[in-house]
Amino acid sequence: MIAMIGNLSAGQYNLIYNTFSFTFAIMAAATAFFWLCRNQVLKHYKIAVTITGLVTFIAAYHYMQIFISFREAFTLKDGAVMATGYEFNDAYRYVDWLLTVPLLLIELILVMHLSIEETIRKSTHLALAAALMIVLGYPGEISTDAGTRWLWWSLAMIPFIYIVYHLFFGLRSSINQQPEQVRNLISKACVLLVIAWCFYPIVFTLPMIGLEGSNASTGVQVGYSIADIVAKAVFGLLIFTIARRKSAVEQK
Amino acid sequence: MIAMIGNLSAGQYNLIYNTFSFTFAIMAAATAFFWLCRNQVLKHYKIAVTITGLVTFIAAYHYMQIFISFREAFTLKDGAVMATGYEFNDAYRYVDWLLTVPLLLIELILVMHLSIEETIRKSTHLALAAALMIVLGYPGEISTDAGTRWLWWSLAMIPFIYIVYHLFFGLRSSINQQPEQVRNLISKACVLLVIAWCFYPIVFTLPMIGLEGSNASTGVQVGYSIADIVAKAVFGLLIFTIARRKSAVEQK
Repeated sequence: MIAMIGNLSAGQYNLIYNTFSFTFAIMAAATAFFWLCRNQVLKHYKIAVTITGLVTFIAAYHYMQIFISFREAFTLKDGAVMATGYEFNDAYRYVDWLLTVPLLLIELILVMHLSIEETIRKSTHLALAAALMIVLGYPGEISTDAGTRWLWWSLAMIPFIYIVYHLFFGLRSSINQQPEQVRNLISKACVLLVIAWCFYPIVFTLPMIGLEGSNASTGVQVGYSIADIVAKAVFGLLIFTIARRKSAVEQK
Repeated sequence: MIAMIGNLSAGQYNLIYNTFSFTFAIMAAATAFFWLCRNQVLKHYKIAVTITGLVTFIAAYHYMQIFISFREAFTLKDGAVMATGYEFNDAYRYVDWLLTVPLLLIELILVMHLSIEETIRKSTHLALAAALMIVLGYPGEISTDAGTRWLWWSLAMIPFIYIVYHLFFGLRSSINQQPEQVRNLISKACVLLVIAWCFYPIVFTLPMIGLEGSNASTGVQVGYSIADIVAKAVFGLLIFTIARRKSAVEQK
């Protein structure tokens, strides 16, 4: 995606710049935490916690690249922001989502510790729907034509709604099989994921509902970063807490 | 190999660029996963899982180098792609294959947990054939003469066919000694490897059957990357799953 950033003010430049650095730091720290604390959970939850760290690891890599790309595309010198002519490549976001969004759903399924067949079936369905959602969103994201954007947005919303439906209703019986102490937490994790994810299709429509220029693009960059932190690091922390509580219950 | 990339469009440049970054991220994440999850399998499968991670580790390193080399050889500025004059070195691919292709076959043999003699014999034969295949392919790859390319291609196909024959028939009796629960999975791993590998000699012939210019080279770069992801990360996941299931069976 060739991001149309517009003419940034020095303040906007600094806000985006520091947001990217902040997000990288959070993702890297979250990765270290999840991987270092893996032995706090029972063996059969370790894969879920490892994947939780994998998601933030992949996100840390991509935020580092986004940050580098931003610094190559814009400079702030003598108080003025200048475009260097090099492209700000935030296709990195889509590449990141293509990998991490399916993994996020898989870590949620894994921490439930269902039967092998159910784990494989649910993981496959949700992961494929997630990948499809990202792939369908991309052609719209790189288009500047509102009609084209709406078309791909609508198509991507089909798997999106399938996933949301699944998180709220399809997993209901599986959640009810969970120990009482974590049932509430797992429901919260589902709700958190859905709320964080709702942000993405809304941000996507910003250029289609009249917002433009550097205000919109600053909002998009900062907004996507916050949504990523919630959906990956905060959500991961919930998964880790669930795995720990379940480990404590099962050890008794 | 001095890759003849041709005049890339901005879209082709971005596609290759993002494919390299994506492949690096997958290989690095897969490495972390395999090495962190080694303790999910019994002791005698740990070497197989370690080598699985070694393969993606070596690939991650080479994709990082390929990515850097690509960025040194081409720039995208003000919407136009320019060749800097610095060479795009993807001999990195052959160096990578020389190391990883023998290791891929060794991880497959190791996860079968045959007798020591059989393990050594089969690993040596297959690894040597794999190394020979890569070495014979290289003189053809760096040649622009169709006759020379066909000559080395044909020579490299001899060890290639030997390996394919071995995966389909030579390992049959060893596969039949495996626990019932994984026999099917091991056969799938063999089939996946053969399908992924068939891609390489086909891509090799593209310049010999009339395809040229930036369309062909974009196809080659993206195609090799996808084949590498399937043959290394996806195949590795199958090896890890086989090792886990066998561990579960043997622990009972």
